Amino acid sequence: MEIIRTVELMKQYSRQAKLDGNTIGFVATMGYLHTGHMSLVKQARSECDKVVVSVFVNPVQFGPDEDLGKYPRDIKHDEVMLEEFGTDVLFVPDDDQMYPDGYSTYVQVEGIVASVLCGASRPGHFRGVTTVVAKLFNIVDPDISYFGQKDAQQAIIIEKMVKDLNMATKVRVMPVVRDEDGLAMSSRNKYLSSSQRHRALNIFCSLEKAKSLILKDVRNIDEIKKEMKMILVGAGNLSIDYIEILDAKDLGSIDKIKGDVLVAVAVHVDRVRLIDNLLVSCKNTRAQEHKSTCDMCS
Amino acid sequence: MEIIRTVELMKQYSRQAKLDGNTIGFVATMGYLHTGHMSLVKQARSECDKVVVSVFVNPVQFGPDEDLGKYPRDIKHDEVMLEEFGTDVLFVPDDDQMYPDGYSTYVQVEGIVASVLCGASRPGHFRGVTTVVAKLFNIVDPDISYFGQKDAQQAIIIEKMVKDLNMATKVRVMPVVRDEDGLAMSSRNKYLSSSQRHRALNIFCSLEKAKSLILKDVRNIDEIKKEMKMILVGAGNLSIDYIEILDAKDLGSIDKIKGDVLVAVAVHVDRVRLIDNLLVSCKNTRAQEHKSTCDMCS
Repeated sequence: MEIIRTVELMKQYSRQAKLDGNTIGFVATMGYLHTGHMSLVKQARSECDKVVVSVFVNPVQFGPDEDLGKYPRDIKHDEVMLEEFGTDVLFVPDDDQMYPDGYSTYVQVEGIVASVLCGASRPGHFRGVTTVVAKLFNIVDPDISYFGQKDAQQAIIIEKMVKDLNMATKVRVMPVVRDEDGLAMSSRNKYLSSSQRHRALNIFCSLEKAKSLILKDVRNIDEIKKEMKMILVGAGNLSIDYIEILDAKDLGSIDKIKGDVLVAVAVHVDRVRLIDNLLVSCKNTRAQEHKSTCDMCS
Repeated sequence: MEIIRTVELMKQYSRQAKLDGNTIGFVATMGYLHTGHMSLVKQARSECDKVVVSVFVNPVQFGPDEDLGKYPRDIKHDEVMLEEFGTDVLFVPDDDQMYPDGYSTYVQVEGIVASVLCGASRPGHFRGVTTVVAKLFNIVDPDISYFGQKDAQQAIIIEKMVKDLNMATKVRVMPVVRDEDGLAMSSRNKYLSSSQRHRALNIFCSLEKAKSLILKDVRNIDEIKKEMKMILVGAGNLSIDYIEILDAKDLGSIDKIKGDVLVAVAVHVDRVRLIDNLLVSCKNTRAQEHKSTCDMCS
């Protein structure tokens, strides 16, 4: 595996790889890699000639009171994992490479898609994400880029940016990867003590509850959110940032459950902010039993 | 000359041209082409295998009270000129191709470079310019893109966007092309009656005056601006939007003339807004006589 630290060398690599007739699969990460990231790398490996993974903790997507400084980092461990999964290039630029003195250009997706959910809770976050991803796309020039459904809103916003700005890359969104207990993989899980982690399992529990209700033909969104809240606040003692059920395609608000919906949750477990979501399709469904895969529910 | 009207076909053309080993030179225009545009096309023709010219009156860069609706258009005349200069592709997308329903992504260069001069007079203008140019760069995938020094601030902002977002294209900025009487070529000159045009000649006259003073070692900016104002308002009866003398590189304000400066003017000739500028280098100069090329001055 080649490790590249400068924008110029990364561009050179991609230019040459393309000239040699290779396709490039790209996974943009902030490092501290886990099985979730690796599902993206595996998919890239299976579809593309060259696999490029970037590790860059992007300062522009963190708010002033967020966890930029203490965001977990372990580049040696990341290198070992990436090597093991057949990565061709690890791109690890530093802040000066990505945002040299006087940097002042930003890419922003506006509208509902970027203003709900984490767009409301974390002002400027997605502007930072789209800016760095636009830059990385220009540097790496990928044929296919892989993102996780765990960050559902991020994936939708990046797809929108790619479409609106006529970017060349395809975007693939891969399913949420969960630990055996149901907790969605996240680098931020590292912050959790074992008792906090136990409380955090109620996130998935609440999502499974929502799915179960929807598949039982409950169509009233407030009713579903109320049940979710009971699990999150009641059983989990979690502080809710948001519980939302939105149109899965464009995150538009809906007055009752219909079509494909995204059930999305953000909570604070003490000082740790976690997000998770489930996509639920209720097209052409009739009432059915949903067997929850959440241990705590069953 | 091939005429392409859709984003998808334009992308296909460029992809194939690149696969065949061609370089692409690109000139983005709003049409109603004149000798100024053609100087860019000529340069592209001399440096690149394929020359692509876009004609698209970009609604997003016009303010609500500006001249979008009556901006001059003559695509048949444009076609003839482009054909004559050896253009390979004329790309003429319509609004729906560039901004389909629900479009919501914008590229913005922030900071001084975008907030002075026309950035102050035309809020949102450069956001519209960088957005459409970023899209066109992604669609056409040019090796070299050509812009005119006539729109000096636009050129600086596009260069900044390309650098900040790590875009692949090179940017070439070509000198202002003037009519024999000194008036800078502009599609908006069409709006001028002959008496208005005569008054507008004072724009170049004022710029030449500034150059002459600088080369005579005048270093006081207010003094130079005062002389320019006398020409513009006094002789020309023009309404001044701005007269500025700024650092030519980053449009930073300077307290006295030094290095390379941009002398920039925007005026209204009745209802027609015109801009013009001169780059003046006073590095290592000693006082020298400047022979004005402006007929009215001499």
